[in-house]
This record gives sequence, C-alpha cells and structure tokens, in this order.
Amino acid sequence: MSERIDMTITNNEMDTFFEPRGVAIVGARHSPGFGYGIPLVLKREGWEDRIYLVNPKGGELHGLPVYAKIAEVPDPVDLAIVIVPAQLTPGVMEEIGQRGIGHVILETAGFAEVGEEGRALQDKVKAVATRFGIRVIGPNCVGVVNAANRFTTVEVLPEALRQGSTAIIAQSGVFGNVLLDLLPFYGLFISKAATLGNRMDVNECDMLEYFHKDPSTRVIMMYLEGAAEGRRLLKTLAKVTCDKPVLVLKSGRTSAGRAATASHTASLSGEDQLYDSLFYQTGAIRVDTLEGLVEMARAFSTQPLPRGNRLGIVTGSGSLGVMATDAAVNAGLTVPPLSPATVDFMRRETPGWMNVRNPLDVGPSNQFARGLEALLRDPGIDMVLAITIIPHAVFREFRQLGLTANIWFGDIAYIREQAPEKPLAICAVGNPELVEDVRNISGPRVPVFISPEPAAKALASLFRYRNWRIRTGTCPA
Amino acid sequence: MSERIDMTITNNEMDTFFEPRGVAIVGARHSPGFGYGIPLVLKREGWEDRIYLVNPKGGELHGLPVYAKIAEVPDPVDLAIVIVPAQLTPGVMEEIGQRGIGHVILETAGFAEVGEEGRALQDKVKAVATRFGIRVIGPNCVGVVNAANRFTTVEVLPEALRQGSTAIIAQSGVFGNVLLDLLPFYGLFISKAATLGNRMDVNECDMLEYFHKDPSTRVIMMYLEGAAEGRRLLKTLAKVTCDKPVLVLKSGRTSAGRAATASHTASLSGEDQLYDSLFYQTGAIRVDTLEGLVEMARAFSTQPLPRGNRLGIVTGSGSLGVMATDAAVNAGLTVPPLSPATVDFMRRETPGWMNVRNPLDVGPSNQFARGLEALLRDPGIDMVLAITIIPHAVFREFRQLGLTANIWFGDIAYIREQAPEKPLAICAVGNPELVEDVRNISGPRVPVFISPEPAAKALASLFRYRNWRIRTGTCPA
Repeated sequence: MSERIDMTITNNEMDTFFEPRGVAIVGARHSPGFGYGIPLVLKREGWEDRIYLVNPKGGELHGLPVYAKIAEVPDPVDLAIVIVPAQLTPGVMEEIGQRGIGHVILETAGFAEVGEEGRALQDKVKAVATRFGIRVIGPNCVGVVNAANRFTTVEVLPEALRQGSTAIIAQSGVFGNVLLDLLPFYGLFISKAATLGNRMDVNECDMLEYFHKDPSTRVIMMYLEGAAEGRRLLKTLAKVTCDKPVLVLKSGRTSAGRAATASHTASLSGEDQLYDSLFYQTGAIRVDTLEGLVEMARAFSTQPLPRGNRLGIVTGSGSLGVMATDAAVNAGLTVPPLSPATVDFMRRETPGWMNVRNPLDVGPSNQFARGLEALLRDPGIDMVLAITIIPHAVFREFRQLGLTANIWFGDIAYIREQAPEKPLAICAVGNPELVEDVRNISGPRVPVFISPEPAAKALASLFRYRNWRIRTGTCPA
Repeated sequence: MSERIDMTITNNEMDTFFEPRGVAIVGARHSPGFGYGIPLVLKREGWEDRIYLVNPKGGELHGLPVYAKIAEVPDPVDLAIVIVPAQLTPGVMEEIGQRGIGHVILETAGFAEVGEEGRALQDKVKAVATRFGIRVIGPNCVGVVNAANRFTTVEVLPEALRQGSTAIIAQSGVFGNVLLDLLPFYGLFISKAATLGNRMDVNECDMLEYFHKDPSTRVIMMYLEGAAEGRRLLKTLAKVTCDKPVLVLKSGRTSAGRAATASHTASLSGEDQLYDSLFYQTGAIRVDTLEGLVEMARAFSTQPLPRGNRLGIVTGSGSLGVMATDAAVNAGLTVPPLSPATVDFMRRETPGWMNVRNPLDVGPSNQFARGLEALLRDPGIDMVLAITIIPHAVFREFRQLGLTANIWFGDIAYIREQAPEKPLAICAVGNPELVEDVRNISGPRVPVFISPEPAAKALASLFRYRNWRIRTGTCPA
C-alpha cells in the first residue's frame, strides 16, 4: 500500500468533478491530442458556455477564445482539466491554486509510472495541491464522464453518453477509454465513469463511496491493477456491496502479470489469492476478462436477483442446450426437472416428437415462445436461459420478406414484461445480423449473449450475489 | 459404446458422399423445409444437371422435373439424399437399393433419438442398408459440404462455401449448421464438413480417417456428445493427430449435461475425465466452448507451430498487456525479457518515456509496427501477440479522412510475410468497425481475436500441440 495522507473527500466535493459550474482547460491547443479534442467534445455536448480554454499563446480554438493565463479565466470556474507537459504541472497547479480553483483532473502522463524522476515530480505537484487544498484526479488518466449532464473529459462518441445505470471505475485511463468505446456496442450504458491513473489523491475507495450514494448508479464496474489502500478497500467494498453489486476485473493475477504493471511501485504485498479472498469476503464479484466484465454488467444492470439456483433452459438446438447445462452446473446452478404442471401443459401444446424436459429442446416446433413463457411461470424454476438459433439461410429468406426474429421466438420483450421477477438471459448463436435482430425483439431489459457459457456464468453470479445479500441481511424483497 | 457391425468404409467409398456423380433428392417438395431448400441451394451452386428430384406427385420444382419413382432416375446416380418422413424410410431404402445407389445421406429425424419405437425403425432401415451394402450418413443430420466442388446438402450461404483448409465433423446436424453459418463471419473457411446425427453407419472415426488423408484438409474440428466406438476413437485420434491437429468440443461434461444428451442411448460408460484422458493421450486439443472451437481453428489453420513457449507481447494499452500476460502464463507460456539487441534497437528508435520491456507497451508512440517487427525478429521470442487499440473517437475521425488502421499499426499482413516462421496472433479490442479494419490490414494469414485471453490460449495450444508432435516423432521441420 502506498503511503497516503488521510484527506477524506466528501460527496459534495466529489460532485464538482462530475457537475462543474465552469471548467478551465489548461493546455488547449491546435495540434492533435487531448488539448484539441477535449474542448471539441465538450463543445459538441453543449458545454461551450461553461468551458474556458487556456494556453499562453492566446488566440482562438474551435471558435472559442483562448486565455493566456489561468488568472484571466472568468467566473464561475471550479474545475481545471490539465493537459500540459509534465514538467510544467507544478507551476500550473500553483496558478490554479491562486485562482481559487479547488478541483483538478490531471490527464498528463510522465509521473510516478515512469520511475524515480517522475515520482519526484508527482510529489511536487501533490505538495502544491495539499497546500491549496486542491482535490486531484490523476495524473496519467483521462478523467471523468457523467451521462446525465453529458460532461466528459474523455473523447467519447455521442452514443457512449446515453444514460444508463452502470458506473465505471478504471485505474487505467486507456482501459477506461476502451470500455467507454465498447459498451454501447453491447447495449450497455453508463451513469458515470472515472479513470484514476496514478491516484495521487482520489482513489478507488473514494469513487466507490461516491457511486454508492449516487442515485443514478445501480451497478459498479471496476478495473484495478492494485489496491491503493488495501484495508480501506476491504471496508468500503463490504459496505457498498450491501446495496449495489460491484464487479471487479483485477489484473496482475500471475507474477509475470504483476511485473508488467510497471506503473505502480506499491500495491498489496500479497499475492493474487489475497485479492481473491478480499473480493470473496466483501461480496464483490470478481471477473477474469474484459468480456466477462461487460457481460456481467449487462446481466446485473438489467436483471432482478433470483430466488434460488434452479435454471430452466429453452433452446432451439439440443447441442447448445447440453453446453449450456454443462456451463450452468459448473458455475453452481442446477438444471432440475420441470414441474408436472409445466410438463403437462407443454405436452398438450406441442407435437408428439418433442421431448418435454429441462433443457427444453423445442427444435423446429415453433414452440419457443410458449416454452419460454412456461419456464418463466414454473414455480420450480428460478431463472431462465433461452437459446435462440435459426439456420442463416432461413433467417435471410425471412428477412427479405421483411419479417423479424419474433416469427420464431415470439415477442421476447413482451414475454419478459409479463414475468419480470425472474432473471432471464438470451443466448443468440449465429451471425451478427441474427444477434442484432434478437437484441431488438428482446428489448433493453434482457441481456443478449452470443454463446451459452457467459450467459450461464452471469446467471450464476446473480445467484451468488443474492446469497451475499441474504448473508448480510440486505437482500431486497 | 453402441454395438456396431464392423463395416469399415474405404476412402474411395467415402468420396462418393463428397463428390457424387449424380444425386437423387428423395422427398423434394414445394412446401418449406429441406425438401424445398436443398434442391434450390444445389441448383444455385451449379449442380442443376446432376440432381434428380423425386416425389410420388411428380411435376416440377425450381424448374427441374420431379420423378415419381426412384427407379425412374436416370444415370449416373450414386448418392441419394433422403428427406421423407421417418416411417417411409424403410421402403425408400429398399427402392434405393434396388436402383443400385450405394450411398445415402438420411436427413430425416425421428429415429433412435426419440425412443424405443424410433430405435426399432432405425434398426429396420439399417437392416435394409446392410442387405444392399448401402453406406449411410445419418439419420437425423444435415449431411455434408464440400467447398472444392460446392456440393452441399446443407442450406448454407454462398460465403460458407469459400474454400479453406478446416474440416468439420459434427455429431449434431443443427450444431454443424450453426458452425457453417458462423465461420465466415470469423474469416474461417472450410474444406469439407460432415454432420453425423445418429451414426447408424458412418461415424466420427470414419470421418477422421477420411479427413486424415484428404489433401484439402489441414485442421479438423469435431463436435461430439459421445463416442460411437471409444477404443477405435482412441486409436484413430492418436494416428490422425501425428499429421493434422484435431480440435474437439465434447459436450456433456457434467452429469446433468450428459442427461441432456437425450439423443444417445449409449456412450462411453465413464465420466468426463475419461474423455479428458482420451484426448490428452491422443494429442487431440480439447476446447470447452463454441467460441473456443472457432478461435482455435483460426489459429491452427493459419499459424506455424512455435519452437518454444516464449511469448512476446506488443500492445497499445498497458492494462491489456497485463491481462494478456496473466492469460498467457496461466495457459503455460512465458513472457520473458527481450533480448539485449531488441532492447537496444527499440531504445534507439523510440521516445524516452517508452518502457522497453515485455510486454512492450508502445502507448501513443506510433511505434507499434516497429515493435511488432522487433519481437518477430527477437531470437528469444517464439511467438507474438499484438494488441491493437485506438480510442474510437480518433479512429472515426481518421476513417472519415479515408485512412485505415495501418496508420497506427503498420501493414500487418506485410510484416507477417517478412517473418512467417513464428506464430502471430492479433487482438483487436474495440468496436466492430475497428476489428473489421484490423482484419483487413492483417490479411488472411493472421488470426484476429477480440480479447487477449482467447488469443493467448490459442497460442498456448499451438505450443502444446508442437510438443505432442515432438513426442510422437512427427514434428514438422
């Protein structure tokens, strides 16, 4: 753990990073890079009248005046985004302090992550910040995003600012940027995001506490290379997970991987098992891969918690039903027999050749929607995985007639609405056109996966998280 | 293991399934389904003058005459595709035998997979086949595909018939169809495919032997729910893998999963560990998921075998470099320091802030291509994983100027050609537009993954397979 002066940040103080009244952009410039792109993206998002560009050269950029000095920036201004070269940052921080700006997002790299000289420079910046009481996110980060007011210090696409309920905490700026780029393509949208970089001041515990209270956030996803304050992380996670799920991708699992996290000189001294144990003890949900992080977030942000671990599977392919069963059982779920009432009902409604069981392989019977409804209604089933599959030649033919996937699978979004209390995941196996079509008929409240294994894992995580909430006495009704 | 009369099938006999001279399609019809679609797809692919439609109603379909009886079909005809209802199949087989047709692809379902009655019917069909010496693929399958002559009994899209070097063996017809639909979207193309269904006659061992000798096949991928002949599978795999890699997805890992493989009444009596051991002993490469199967096939069908397990990583994101390192080490690879010559070279060529090590994080230095070349040249590196990443806002801006990803990453296909002896995998993390663009600049000889973990796993499998070839004394130079 790095040594750290205790400077607890209040939620009110944190608010300024996400809801500034006025923003100085120090290091705005005409050449490619953040200094050019950030003013542009903020202008695009309607922040033109609240951003103030600063560069000693003065002049104009993107049709906005450029102030030569921070001292000249007009009121109100409570946040500075700093993008100047590293060696200039101590002086710039001094000017920011004198101008009375209390919050800085320091995006510049070249500090502790590059060795001793950089660390000395970072300590110098920190001393200035402490003297003035400036709160700092960074250095070596890309700052924050708030979908609600479309404030962003990251050059994201407009669609990445559509409001959702998942918050992002990313130690690495580049990784945070990758996530922000990827999520819209998975139909996942965020409430807020923060990239922390070298964590000179604000760290993941501060962010966890802030998102814990943030009414727009229901799920928190976090990318970590090492804990800034191990003991505080333990306490904070245990508290936050009683109300909101926290999904953690902690890299550096192997010693070679840890050696590669060159940007951090200090982290929990222990090995990866310590982290495993930390996350287990605190109800945090650890995932192993980037895809896993995104997929879990889709399930947690859209699904209720299940009553138990009994999974019902309806599938258009027996093979995929078997694979889903394997994956579910390996993840800690059961795939029990269907209730007699469900069996009777399905036998009455379906052709004689159909084998009414769990997994329910409806084959080419056109009974997919009926099977899905029956599983959602079955009192012996706690959650449902539905595998939509159709040969592409058939799919394309029907598409040319203007038909959509609900021809085969029913109106999944509507079926979901009729039985909202059980988790439901769809697995659409096939080409991207089919997946897209199934996403459309499933609506925003149903996560659509492209293979059975991650869907089963996500459902199993919902079950384990429900158990955690029961254990901590915080299980929702 | 199911009981089975030994009726070894020769490769010459098998050829007829893939290269028939004339094909009777028994059960051609005007209503939707295989009987309508198969003649249509064969006509589309230029088989019009070699297919003969059969239906008691006679008349015409897709502009082709329909023969009322199999006996009326003109010469030459050596293969029949049968799509009539199950109860009619014994009679149809009798007529096929009398007409002197020696090969049947029996696509009809409703046999052993639906219970005792179906099994009795299947035995009846088998008795007729044995009496006439007819070789049968199926029942309950979708038959075969041969990309070389574009012969297909599966309704695939035209792009699924582009010739590649990977052969497919799928016990399940639906699953085989799914694979055929998916592969073109991953840039993977096949030599031949066979779906086996209930394996009344031809089984996976026959197909393995056939593809072993097939000059158009370099890699074999197989989906299995249970072995038809366990001992023979052991012997066959051990032989085939000395020349060609065999990738196996064996489902029914858990007892619940095995219970769900309702379509088979008999399989290896043992548990999943038996299969693990069988595949391990025979050098077959077992994968756990559909995605894994496809991803491994891309690596095996395009990459040489590595000399050792020393992985070099070049990355645009430190975080993804760490994740790739974790995944590689967990999969049995090492991520060793770079050779002094490589370090010197990169230090000379790159900005001072760049940390020259393995993984090589080039950040925004524009040194990606140079780093990739240096790793491919490094004598201490056996294989390379290159992680291409670019913020989407930047990517879109450059795209609008008509530029492609080689601006950032160099001409990967060309770099690859200069150093063809080491395995190379690309990991393109980002939205589908970027992935597509990176696929284009990487060319057909480099597999492009969308996250680091499967790429690392695939490279590790190449290494393990190389070890198998060394152990068996069949390692290629």
